[in-house]
Order: sequence, then structure tokens, then C-alpha cells
Amino acid sequence: MNKSPSYQLVSRAYRENRTSINVGGIQIGAGEFVVIAGPCSVESKEQLLLCAEEAKRCGAKVLRGGCFKPRTSPYSFQGLGFQALSYLHEVGKFHSIPVITEVLDAREVSEVSRQVDVVQVGARNMQNTALLKAVGAIDKPVLLKRGMMSSIEELLCAAEYIVTQGNEQVILCERGIRTFETTTRYTLDLSAVPVLKELTHLPIIVDPSHAAGRRSLVPALSCAAKAVGADGLIIEMHPQPDLALSDGAQSLDFMEFERLMLELR
Amino acid sequence: MNKSPSYQLVSRAYRENRTSINVGGIQIGAGEFVVIAGPCSVESKEQLLLCAEEAKRCGAKVLRGGCFKPRTSPYSFQGLGFQALSYLHEVGKFHSIPVITEVLDAREVSEVSRQVDVVQVGARNMQNTALLKAVGAIDKPVLLKRGMMSSIEELLCAAEYIVTQGNEQVILCERGIRTFETTTRYTLDLSAVPVLKELTHLPIIVDPSHAAGRRSLVPALSCAAKAVGADGLIIEMHPQPDLALSDGAQSLDFMEFERLMLELR
Amino acid sequence: MNKSPSYQLVSRAYRENRTSINVGGIQIGAGEFVVIAGPCSVESKEQLLLCAEEAKRCGAKVLRGGCFKPRTSPYSFQGLGFQALSYLHEVGKFHSIPVITEVLDAREVSEVSRQVDVVQVGARNMQNTALLKAVGAIDKPVLLKRGMMSSIEELLCAAEYIVTQGNEQVILCERGIRTFETTTRYTLDLSAVPVLKELTHLPIIVDPSHAAGRRSLVPALSCAAKAVGADGLIIEMHPQPDLALSDGAQSLDFMEFERLMLELR
Amino acid sequence: MNKSPSYQLVSRAYRENRTSINVGGIQIGAGEFVVIAGPCSVESKEQLLLCAEEAKRCGAKVLRGGCFKPRTSPYSFQGLGFQALSYLHEVGKFHSIPVITEVLDAREVSEVSRQVDVVQVGARNMQNTALLKAVGAIDKPVLLKRGMMSSIEELLCAAEYIVTQGNEQVILCERGIRTFETTTRYTLDLSAVPVLKELTHLPIIVDPSHAAGRRSLVPALSCAAKAVGADGLIIEMHPQPDLALSDGAQSLDFMEFERLMLELR
Repeated sequence: MNKSPSYQLVSRAYRENRTSINVGGIQIGAGEFVVIAGPCSVESKEQLLLCAEEAKRCGAKVLRGGCFKPRTSPYSFQGLGFQALSYLHEVGKFHSIPVITEVLDAREVSEVSRQVDVVQVGARNMQNTALLKAVGAIDKPVLLKRGMMSSIEELLCAAEYIVTQGNEQVILCERGIRTFETTTRYTLDLSAVPVLKELTHLPIIVDPSHAAGRRSLVPALSCAAKAVGADGLIIEMHPQPDLALSDGAQSLDFMEFERLMLELR
Repeated sequence: MNKSPSYQLVSRAYRENRTSINVGGIQIGAGEFVVIAGPCSVESKEQLLLCAEEAKRCGAKVLRGGCFKPRTSPYSFQGLGFQALSYLHEVGKFHSIPVITEVLDAREVSEVSRQVDVVQVGARNMQNTALLKAVGAIDKPVLLKRGMMSSIEELLCAAEYIVTQGNEQVILCERGIRTFETTTRYTLDLSAVPVLKELTHLPIIVDPSHAAGRRSLVPALSCAAKAVGADGLIIEMHPQPDLALSDGAQSLDFMEFERLMLELR
Repeated sequence: MNKSPSYQLVSRAYRENRTSINVGGIQIGAGEFVVIAGPCSVESKEQLLLCAEEAKRCGAKVLRGGCFKPRTSPYSFQGLGFQALSYLHEVGKFHSIPVITEVLDAREVSEVSRQVDVVQVGARNMQNTALLKAVGAIDKPVLLKRGMMSSIEELLCAAEYIVTQGNEQVILCERGIRTFETTTRYTLDLSAVPVLKELTHLPIIVDPSHAAGRRSLVPALSCAAKAVGADGLIIEMHPQPDLALSDGAQSLDFMEFERLMLELR
Repeated sequence: MNKSPSYQLVSRAYRENRTSINVGGIQIGAGEFVVIAGPCSVESKEQLLLCAEEAKRCGAKVLRGGCFKPRTSPYSFQGLGFQALSYLHEVGKFHSIPVITEVLDAREVSEVSRQVDVVQVGARNMQNTALLKAVGAIDKPVLLKRGMMSSIEELLCAAEYIVTQGNEQVILCERGIRTFETTTRYTLDLSAVPVLKELTHLPIIVDPSHAAGRRSLVPALSCAAKAVGADGLIIEMHPQPDLALSDGAQSLDFMEFERLMLELR
């Protein structure tokens, strides 16, 4: 329909072979199914140490932990900020596990990116072009989450904003779209995975935790994500989900996480 | 939230153990992953014989074939009607394979049900209460498809309409919901499978063909449906999809179908 | 995009001038803004007499009253059926006001149509082709409601199903579509009115009551419907909304109804 | 449902009387229906001068003009940037008409805000908390557009992010939400206007141009927005829509704009 394509560099027409991204020594998109796990929010160094240990023990390859939280309400917990970031950095080093966190502000991209192995652009910021350009100017992989009401084409255009700035290390993430159905928090669009594999050479992972909104659904959706062809998962887990400062309802406890990791093998 | 529940007999509160439905000797919901396959529309006896043979050869257990087509436009092919129904009946007998077709009109339920092993209520008729009551009065299993605009609770209420009439043999089917995303015809809501397994004792199968709208996505979605915990699939296949009178774009040819059946094992 | 159009007889290409439908002497689509009002469900003859009197006194031209209710749950009030239908017929005659009710079952179309001036096909049955064909075979106007997740093109195709059977007296009704927004029951798609006026010659009315789901929004949406170019409204009112057997939350009481009718002038 | 409210300062519980915002001497929310008009993008000083003259002549009170365009694709026209901003500033001064433009980057808020009378936060940035906080720290009115994927509650939370920073001058804008319907670019949610008037004291305007996506629908939707109770409109117009560098299809030409302004009176 369009005369000039809305994205080019991320398309399979541009590069036929699938791209694999190096995340602190771990390859995402190279065939191995990679699990990223950790707490929604970094709440303390102790909490993060426990999570890192459990993640490694069960076979997860990257540690996630939110420092700056893009909460709907200004009155919700906003994350521990740079304090959390330093915990994440330290714990990653201590346990030799790559770490990822979300960045919200273009002015903080360079500082955040120095302390993590992957920088995440969240669903609410998928079309924040200032932020996309800022992460396009660094030399760290970017995990780009699909907006909850963004089309697949818009996701690829957002990736193109990053790549046109020079940073080709983009990992896409399907995390559920907004629909009329309310028994789940969002509707996980697993069809997006094979569709994206037709359209782009970039790797695609799935976030079942935010999509489902409750932990009982996470194992089944994780297995489905693997079966549908995703390159990996990003999952929320917590030593005591019921005490979590954010998203406890969708976080697995350690026993559930271990069981899921066994099931995925 | 509701004082009186909107559905009861189909809930797990009413029956804790999952129900298995006998479809001409095949059990759906008893642990085995059952594939229903066949053409979108019955176009000729020859076409149907070829499909039945291929279905059986590859391990599908039930033959589907549309006789009465609920088309959006009155100018689209409406199916061969009762002629198609007699082909379906004959071919099922000849190949000893149970058959399923959709019924559109409450006045035709009893005649249609005599010639098939399962009667289907389609997505567009999920809240057609006259039809629900009519299939609730027969003694044949009913495949109830979720409306493209229907919530999971509404699907269960529709099933309750059938069961309250006395027919407990209901199989639910997720077939994609309508969302803003247009790269797929509908958005297959695979989360509905584990959600339904929490809420109801009835078996749940998945229709990846209508959801995707194009055949290249059907294999990945079929594997995901199995992984997410569905009890089976209903898939469209055709000896020559490009010549199909309806839904050719989403029908697998025989080679693709065989490959998928191998992959599912 | 389509080689053959999905609808023809209802299109403006087929008939340039807008069609006006005669409803018991009242013209809908002829320039006058017509209000149809009455209770969601007919609950008693007394209730209906009160509503008819109030409707007439305030300038409404047609009386609505549900006899057969297409409820989501089989345990909700299903309407008083043919008893309600005879009340509606009598009250309409007594007050010389045309009456409208919904029909759910193709087998009841002919009997229902004898006792009312307009037969309604509800949103849940918009793609019930058996019912569409049945109302296409009678000689009474049909009010066709848009499905809550049906596109405008699908609405026109549904109207085409009726008209191709010989009944050209179709009035379209926008009543809200299903979206992610939950502060209203549905999202009233007022853009559909000017879009439909470009595409079809049939009259279009708006149902603000079902869309909003609560009465406080009905007056503003009614005024907007008139301003956007609709040919009329269908509104729920009740002598005592809090005691209504269905949809009380969205029904206006008589004082609110009178105020709205004054505002609309 | 929530123990602590997700927004407070913008709620009617906090301030019962409706707030009126002073935009360069024009009051929005004080009873007068205010029209903001101008081109989607500032393309040249000449184009802007023509638009400003026409806007004033026909009774529009504020001039809009895009300088920084949040385009889906990086290959689409991105606006003339600070050059455009200086044109907008000059033309506003020359014609004594307040001006508004969108800001995309928190780092540019203070510079942009010095040259305009209202700063706009666009739909794609409604949950860009860094940007919300930045416009919350200035002393200029902010036009906050509802995200195409955002609920009414989320819109109010975004407004709360601004107000909690100290800037109380927030004008809300409904501009269409994303739904399954594709005959319009978005679905204008006019119900949001009376809903917002129940929930917040802030003024609410409507953008019919972006919602509709084509100019033929803009007049009807504008009249509906006024009738539903909005405090004003923001409309796209252009001396030669067919030559516009962005959004030409939805821009009114001067004759259409004049006719609409007459109709609105």
C-alpha cells in the first residue's frame, strides 16, 4: 500500500539471516531459548541477591530488575532509582549474570546503560521517539517492548528509529495487547512471534507475566511462547510475591519458577 | 462480584473433574490431543474423500466440512447445504471417521444432527439463544465456538444455555478475537485455554486457521495451542487451497498438513 | 479492494436518495428526528401504559418494549414472552403509537411481526443469517442493530441479507462497540453515523442507553447523536428505573426523559 | 476497588467547580466553545500566515502548528523543528493569536514553552512520565491528549503527574481510541467528554481530525463534540490539503473550515 516502506533496516528484505544479539556473553536469537528472570522492582540488595542466585541455579541467563518504574499513577511506587541501579550492577557482577533494566528518560540513557548489559524501552514508551533515538546512540543491546495497543508494523518502525541511529542490537518483546477481554490483564498475542519472524531478522522474546497479570497463567503461556518459536522469555519472579512492592500478583515464587524452568526443558 | 453466578453447571465449582466428550468413539478432553481436520467447505464428494483419507492417514481423528456457511456477505458462497451434508455423512461412514459440521438455523438442528457426530455452533451465533437451546435439546456433542466479540464469561454463559437444556456434551473452541491488530485476521487468545481450564470442566480446543487467516502461521500456532494445554485442534486443509471456494488462504495443503501432524507428535 | 462488492442494494451507488421508512404512519429518515422510547423489558400492562403515555406526552413517536430478552446468562430474566407481546400490541393500539420489539427466533418472526409495527434484530443476532432471512421475508420495517464488535461493512452486509429477501424497510442502529475502555458499557461510535450516510441510503438511528450503560450519560450522547446527523434515537425509560427487571441503571426516569426531550428540541 | 486513589488533585472530589485555563487571554473551560485551528505541520511562514489569518477571520481563537512531528516511521516527515517554532512564534505575535505546538522531548520543554502559549503532549507520549514531569515544571498551559490506547483513568493519572509537579493548567483532549473498526482512523470516544466532566474539574476539548482520518467526517463530529458538552475543538486546516506534508487527508481547506465555523455557531 505504501510507496516507500515505513521500515527497512530491520526487515528481512534487508537481511535474510536472523540476527543474534550478544548480551554479556549470552546469545539471544541464535537458537538457544533464553530466559530472563527477576523481580518486577529492585526492592533491596538482599532481595536481588536471592533472585540472582535462584535465576542462575534454575538456568535463567539474564537478571531483570526494575529501577525506574513507569507507573500509571504518580502515587504508586516509582522504583528505587539510581540506588536500585547500583544494586543491580553489583549483583550482576557478583553472580556473573548479565542484567537488564528499563530506562524512562532520554537524559538518563547514558548513565543507565553504563551499569547494565541491556537497556529496556517499555511498552508505554514504545513511540517515545526522543527515547528511541537516545538508546539508538549507545552501544548496548536494547530490549524494545511492544506497546499494549501498538500494531506489529508500529513496533518495527520503533525498532527502525533505534537502528537508524546506529545501534543494531535490538531485541523485540511481545508483552500483550489491550483488548476487550478482562480476565487477563492484556491479551498475549503469540501470533506476533511467527508474524515477526516473517517480517524481521531481529530476535523476539515474550513477556508472559505482564500479559497474564496473574501467576497461575504464566507457566502455560511460557510453554506456548517456546512452542510458537520465540527466542526467549522475560519472567517476573520474587522470593515473596505477596510482599512485592509492584506486580506481586503476576510474579512466580521460587518453587513455581523452578518448576517452570524444568518444564521448559 | 455477582450475587448469583451467571453460569453454574459448566463451572469447576459444580464439577471438579474435567469432562471428556465421546465423539463417535473418540474421547476429547481425556488427555489425548485430538486433531479435527478437513476443508472449510464441502465442495464435492471427491474433495471430501481425499481430505478424509489424508486426515486419517496423518492421524487426525475427526473430519470437518462446512455445509452451511455463515458468510458475511449474501453474495459469497453459502455452502452446498443438505447435498454437502449427505456427502459428509457418506464419507464419514465410508472412512469410519466421525464428522462435524456447523448448523446455522434452529429449524435444521435435528436433521443436521442425525447425519453428523458433532454439531458446531459458530462464532457469529454464539449468542443466538434460539440456536443454543435447539442444540441443547439433542443428544449429540456440540462444538461451541467463542464469538470474535465475546468474553470468556460470555462463552461459558452460552455453554450454560446448552447444558441447562439437558445436553452436557459441550466442547469449547477458542478461534481468535477481534482486536486492533490487522496482520492476522483475528488475534488468537491462547491465554483463554488456561483461563478456561480454571473456570470450567468442559474440554477446550483451538482453531488456529480462522484466527490466523493465512496458512503460514498455522503450524506455529498449532504447536503453541498444544503447549498451552488445549485438548485438541480444528484445522482447515484442502487438496488445492488455491482453488478453495472459501478460506483458501488459511487452508493447509496435504504436504503442509502432514508436516504439521508430524511436528505435533 | 474487493472485485465484487459485499453489498449492493443498500449502497448509495444503488440508490442515491436517502430512503425513508414508514413506521405506522411515522417517517424515519425523512428529515424529522424521531425518538423511540420505552422500557427495556415489558414488565406489566400497567408499566407499559405509563410509559406509552409519558412517551406520547413528551413527543416520542414510537414505543419500545422488550418481550424476548437475549440475556447473556440463562439465569437472567428472559422477558415475559408472548404475554408481553400482547400487552405491547394492546397498549400501542390504545394509545395509537407504533410499537417495536426484538425477535430472537426465526420461527417466531411471523407471529411477532403481526403484533408490532417494527421488528428488531438485536446486536447479538446481527450475523444470525437464519433470522436475517426470516425478517427479510415479512412486510414490516426491521430495526437492525449493529453488533458490538461488528464493522460498519458487516452491518451493511447484514442489511443486504434482509433486503435481498425482498424487504427493503431496514433501519440501521448504532448502539456502541466493544473496546478496551470500561468506564462505559460500550463505546458509542458516533462516527458511524456520517460514515453510514456516505455508504448507504438507509436511515440510521442511535441507541445511547445500551452504549453508555448508565443514565447520567444518556442526555449528552442523545444531543450528540442528533448533532452528528442521526435520524433518531431509541432510548430506555422506566417509571421506576431502580425497580426495573433489566437494564435499570441505564433507563431514564420520567422526569429525566421529559427534560431530555425538551433539550432535544 | 483501589484503597488509595490513583489521582486526586485533578478529581472533582478535590475541586467541585470546573477549572478554566487562560491561554494567552482566551479562557478554555469558562463556557465559551473555543476552536483551535491550524495546519498539522508548519511547512513555511507563508503557509502559517495564511492559516492564522483564516483562523482569526472565521472565529478560531488559538493557532495550532506542528513543529516536531511524532511520526510512526523514521522515514516520514519529522517537522521543521526549531525553525518552525520561530515561525509559529512570529506569526502568533503578528496576528495576536495564541499558539500551540507539540513537544516530544523533555530536554526541549523549556525552550519550546518560551515560544508558545500552550505546550501539547501528544497521544503517543501520554504515559511518557519524564515528559509529563517536565511540562509539570513550567508555567504554561498544557494540552494533554489521551493516548489511543489509554483508558480515561489513565488519562487522569497522566494529568495528575503534571499537576503534582506544580502546573495546574492542564487541558484534556479526546482524539480517538484504537478499536477494531477501520473505516475511521480511530474511534472518537465522545462518551469520554461527559464521563470526564463527572470525574475531573479540568476542561476537555475534542480533536475530530485525527480521530476521523478524513475530512468529510470532521464537520459532523465537530458539531457532535459541541453537543456532547466539550469545551472546544482542535482542528486541522490547510490552504491546500492535497499538498500537505502530513495528514492532508484529514485537513479541511479554507472553504470547508469557514462553513464549519458558521455551522458551529
